[in-house]
Amino acid sequence: MSKSEQAIQYFRDNQKLMTGSYLDLVRIPSISTDPDHKADMVKAAQFLASTLADLGFDRVEIFETKMHPIMFAEKKSGNPNAKTLLIYGHYDVQPVDPLDEWKSDPFEPEFRGEYLYARGASDMKGQVMASIIALDSVLKTTNLPINIKYLLEGEEEIGSPSLEGFIADHTDLLSCDMILNPDAGMVGKDQPTLVYGLRGMTYFEVRVDGPKADLHSGLWGGNVANPAIVLSEIIAKLHNPDGSVAIHGFYDRVAPLNDEEREQIAANQTNEQVFLEVTGSPALYGEAGYTPLERQGARPTLDVNGFYSGFIGEGAKTIIPAYAKAKISCRLVPNQDPVEIFELAKKYILSIAPDTVRIKVFLHSAGPAYLANDAPGAQNLVDALSEVWQTPVTFKREGGSIPVATVMQRELGVKSLLTGFGLPDDAIHSPNERMHFPSWLKGIEALIRFYLSFGED
Amino acid sequence: MSKSEQAIQYFRDNQKLMTGSYLDLVRIPSISTDPDHKADMVKAAQFLASTLADLGFDRVEIFETKMHPIMFAEKKSGNPNAKTLLIYGHYDVQPVDPLDEWKSDPFEPEFRGEYLYARGASDMKGQVMASIIALDSVLKTTNLPINIKYLLEGEEEIGSPSLEGFIADHTDLLSCDMILNPDAGMVGKDQPTLVYGLRGMTYFEVRVDGPKADLHSGLWGGNVANPAIVLSEIIAKLHNPDGSVAIHGFYDRVAPLNDEEREQIAANQTNEQVFLEVTGSPALYGEAGYTPLERQGARPTLDVNGFYSGFIGEGAKTIIPAYAKAKISCRLVPNQDPVEIFELAKKYILSIAPDTVRIKVFLHSAGPAYLANDAPGAQNLVDALSEVWQTPVTFKREGGSIPVATVMQRELGVKSLLTGFGLPDDAIHSPNERMHFPSWLKGIEALIRFYLSFGED
Repeated sequence: MSKSEQAIQYFRDNQKLMTGSYLDLVRIPSISTDPDHKADMVKAAQFLASTLADLGFDRVEIFETKMHPIMFAEKKSGNPNAKTLLIYGHYDVQPVDPLDEWKSDPFEPEFRGEYLYARGASDMKGQVMASIIALDSVLKTTNLPINIKYLLEGEEEIGSPSLEGFIADHTDLLSCDMILNPDAGMVGKDQPTLVYGLRGMTYFEVRVDGPKADLHSGLWGGNVANPAIVLSEIIAKLHNPDGSVAIHGFYDRVAPLNDEEREQIAANQTNEQVFLEVTGSPALYGEAGYTPLERQGARPTLDVNGFYSGFIGEGAKTIIPAYAKAKISCRLVPNQDPVEIFELAKKYILSIAPDTVRIKVFLHSAGPAYLANDAPGAQNLVDALSEVWQTPVTFKREGGSIPVATVMQRELGVKSLLTGFGLPDDAIHSPNERMHFPSWLKGIEALIRFYLSFGED
Repeated sequence: MSKSEQAIQYFRDNQKLMTGSYLDLVRIPSISTDPDHKADMVKAAQFLASTLADLGFDRVEIFETKMHPIMFAEKKSGNPNAKTLLIYGHYDVQPVDPLDEWKSDPFEPEFRGEYLYARGASDMKGQVMASIIALDSVLKTTNLPINIKYLLEGEEEIGSPSLEGFIADHTDLLSCDMILNPDAGMVGKDQPTLVYGLRGMTYFEVRVDGPKADLHSGLWGGNVANPAIVLSEIIAKLHNPDGSVAIHGFYDRVAPLNDEEREQIAANQTNEQVFLEVTGSPALYGEAGYTPLERQGARPTLDVNGFYSGFIGEGAKTIIPAYAKAKISCRLVPNQDPVEIFELAKKYILSIAPDTVRIKVFLHSAGPAYLANDAPGAQNLVDALSEVWQTPVTFKREGGSIPVATVMQRELGVKSLLTGFGLPDDAIHSPNERMHFPSWLKGIEALIRFYLSFGED
């Protein structure tokens, strides 16, 4: 029996006992957004700290933040040349309301069919505990061939306000060769997944100034350009009728999708019906010539995130607004330069703006797309996943960004392995959140194989 | 000497003394929007009540409202068959800030050159006192050939919240044959003016619903229609490239301007430079084929009064908004039916809306245009004005509506005579408000002639 098989056998023999710590963590109602649960946040951080201490971690430390603590832990391999794997996770969970839609207590885990139901069962206490239980199984049966560091935060569900500063202030503490972030999930239960692409972003604002103050629309309507109408006309010209972005040069650097990528994307079995149900939109809409999944992760897009002008209260006020403004963001794909895209957008908008108003276009933020198919350890992880599931790994480009991955790449110089064992229908921010238990068990076995892939097996 | 000439002579002989009451009224800082001046509001109402009582009015009454009092007064003619003239006015004024831009105390009237400077000197204490001093001159020299009623409110500068209800509740008290509203002003100092047209209005709201909640623009951008973009595209299609309104049928009932009207409008000497200075817009803009003055009063228009969608705070939030909404108003000219215009707008908007969103179009308010060239007493007033100024009267269509005129027409069945002696550069809502004193003196003489035109002269 290989070392991996020994460790997996140990886990199988002790599965019920080892699962207990997962259930215990889920029982702590660590809702980060609710001040009433501040003590539960500390309790959850301490639970994880003592769990890792019991595993023989060399250093376990809880750092205070302005909100909820960050837990750091480190376990050194016996091999002085061992690589270091940093595992990121969060121990906070979403609120549970509406509570009356839950079929069981959100903080008393309950098995029904193949699922374990509880808040946090999937997002992401289940993922964190899978990584710990896999490590425990390795430590109980053999020597650890890599150094392990844990970085567990309690603010992910509220936007991680403390994390970026913490990472920037602790780059030595967090230095590593590989990063595992198991918060990304699988595209389906028979599809172990590695997320390898995240879109970048350019976020800017357009402001249209007309009259020096709001004007009486009766006295002046018909004689001055209305900033709200001018801005609408500008926004209306940002897309072509086929749904593509009309800004000149927007697609110039976009690498065309090759056949292999299109096949990889098509292998993801999410269908349009799921998109409709999740969004609640009456119909899907997007760039012609691409599938919804291609549009989601592999094509750049432009959205208006908000706009405002004039009177928006109850009732009626008859003004020509003095100004109108819109917040606009572009999701970018590899090779697009976010600052160049802003300059192209600004140039285009100024070129179509009439001289009856004053236009300002200014940048809020710009970040490039993220391609991590070359993240360190990717091949080891892919091999481990496909070995356990006995199927090829699905490579997925996500439409959004995972800020912690971007921050870690910048501060620590390491790209993240984005994976996980949650499923799209886990209801992670909704009532009756659940974890597909067979996927969780497989996930632990895959992580055992992954950890041990760096030693002689 | 005719009775008018006798009364005018009396006024000229006593001008200095009679002007004193105007200055006394202006000294009361009756700022309706400022709670600190609540006592001054009462003081101004009482000043007017006692002034009219001193003139021998039969009934003088101050009515409490939720905000500031309404003063009603009535003086009967000796002639039992006399017609009744209701004079509308307001005794409240705008705030005075920024105070440091005033060259003299806003509540201590000061003559400089041809002007009297003070807050309310023009808007509209000067107009109210002109009507009272003219009446005083008549009463001192002859018999009053008409019954006079006064309705003076203290809430005009804050939108007259109490007035409509008061009028509806007191239609017998306010019953009359003619209404004089001297709050409308002159188009220039040598151009006595009768405003004979006010535009109507249709005010509606468009709401575009897309996803069931704000979506993450990274995950979903490119796959669902963005309500803010869809609404912008709808608004962009409400006008044609020539500046005309694109709603099908919008102009069907609009009576073309005839040559006489165009000449009357062109006689108004306001030029484009004044429009630019007042609005502060970098350029004028409007329907092709019409002058700015024609567009202002005689052509229907469509404006967006405000719009909102998604995130409009500081910084950046990356969402696809669940909905977007816009408030839209159309200014209408005679013969356009405001409810029909709403139906046409709704039909047009629904016809251009995509099926990727849900659209609602709903009416806020609808009121027809107002044409008052046939208001009772119009010929008498025109004759009096042209006699004093020795020039033909300018007939003007205003772009806005004067709500009190619409309410009085509906509740009392009488159209208003809209005139006044203020000038466009009186700075009525700004620092250094002023009254052109020679115009004010002429106005008193014109009102003397007007009052006496209903008796044998």
